[in-house]
Amino acid sequence: MKQRRLYDLAGGDETIRFSPYCWRTKLALAHKNLKFESVPWHFTDKDAIAFSKQGKVPVLADGESVIADSQEIAEYLETAYPNEASLFGDAATRALIGFMKAWTEDVLHPAIIPLVVRDIWALLDPKDQDYFRETRERFLGRKLEDFAPQRETYLAAFKKTLSPLRRTLKAQNFIAGAAPNYADHIVFGALQWARITSQAPLLDDEPEISAWMAAVLGTYGL
Amino acid sequence: MKQRRLYDLAGGDETIRFSPYCWRTKLALAHKNLKFESVPWHFTDKDAIAFSKQGKVPVLADGESVIADSQEIAEYLETAYPNEASLFGDAATRALIGFMKAWTEDVLHPAIIPLVVRDIWALLDPKDQDYFRETRERFLGRKLEDFAPQRETYLAAFKKTLSPLRRTLKAQNFIAGAAPNYADHIVFGALQWARITSQAPLLDDEPEISAWMAAVLGTYGL
Repeated sequence: MKQRRLYDLAGGDETIRFSPYCWRTKLALAHKNLKFESVPWHFTDKDAIAFSKQGKVPVLADGESVIADSQEIAEYLETAYPNEASLFGDAATRALIGFMKAWTEDVLHPAIIPLVVRDIWALLDPKDQDYFRETRERFLGRKLEDFAPQRETYLAAFKKTLSPLRRTLKAQNFIAGAAPNYADHIVFGALQWARITSQAPLLDDEPEISAWMAAVLGTYGL
Repeated sequence: MKQRRLYDLAGGDETIRFSPYCWRTKLALAHKNLKFESVPWHFTDKDAIAFSKQGKVPVLADGESVIADSQEIAEYLETAYPNEASLFGDAATRALIGFMKAWTEDVLHPAIIPLVVRDIWALLDPKDQDYFRETRERFLGRKLEDFAPQRETYLAAFKKTLSPLRRTLKAQNFIAGAAPNYADHIVFGALQWARITSQAPLLDDEPEISAWMAAVLGTYGL
């Protein structure tokens, strides 16, 4: 049997796995019915994934194949395991998943970051904390602590951002209809990241979204 | 040959047809390769569509069948003309179009309204203007003229809203991939409404979106 390893971002408590991109990959692997060994990885463990020739997770080692980047991994899995359930469906479905990815990364992720970025820092292994603070503060142009005073504004904006998702899940079980596909994996990854890292509950008052997240995990026995 | 009439919202100049929902239906009819007679309709022409048992357009009279509401019309066309190109594709594509509809109506339409609502009033037949002002001011809780002072803020919010669409159309020709489907029709309807009614250009600095809108029209020879 092929050896399969996924390098998965972990907190100081290594049972905490919060990367939205790693969640996409874990669900995609489950969708393809593929078992794998999960290797906890920390932001500063650059040497551990040097074999992938870049410095971020997810990294999948699938036998002799090494693939980095969640989108590349999903494309690889779709091609390498064509007899398992499709991640992307037909050409039109795949194209619409392109919009879901753009919406998740351009709208949903930026709405989540102000609510969780300081909480993520607190969850990290101490060896990662300076790296995380430095890179994120440079990217965001603010100190991690500077989001807290406007928390209510950010929370309201996040809730508003969820509106089309909430409405969609009132009408259907999954974003892709009767069963999840990679569109669900992408959006789930973002909200699982939010749910796992936020110290305050973000989705407790979202029955449709909470039920959908449970159903995504349930589909794959996770 | 079956007689087919579409009641289409018109301005005082009856060549101006701006309803986002009517545009969906016109594109859906073109997608199904169906010719129709377009009947200009004004907000206060309730009697003209009384046969549809409700007071809004689009209304499609297709031989003996009378269908109101753009979504109902699209579902009707998909069922009644199964041998023409599909509007919705397979079950997963149809489900993802559900998200595109929710995004368009919950996010894109509200971002457009403040930019065009006063301009729409100015385009209407004088007999419609009081009705439009009264119903819209009640719905919006403001006078139509009260949006102008914050126009720059609304314009920036609208541009930000377009971000996932812009990104999607950088990667693919249509929202549905190589050819448009009803997902494209829904989003096109919103932006055509904006483009036709706004006195100031809203999309002139959006090359990907402008090219896509031209390509949607071009697909159907419109």
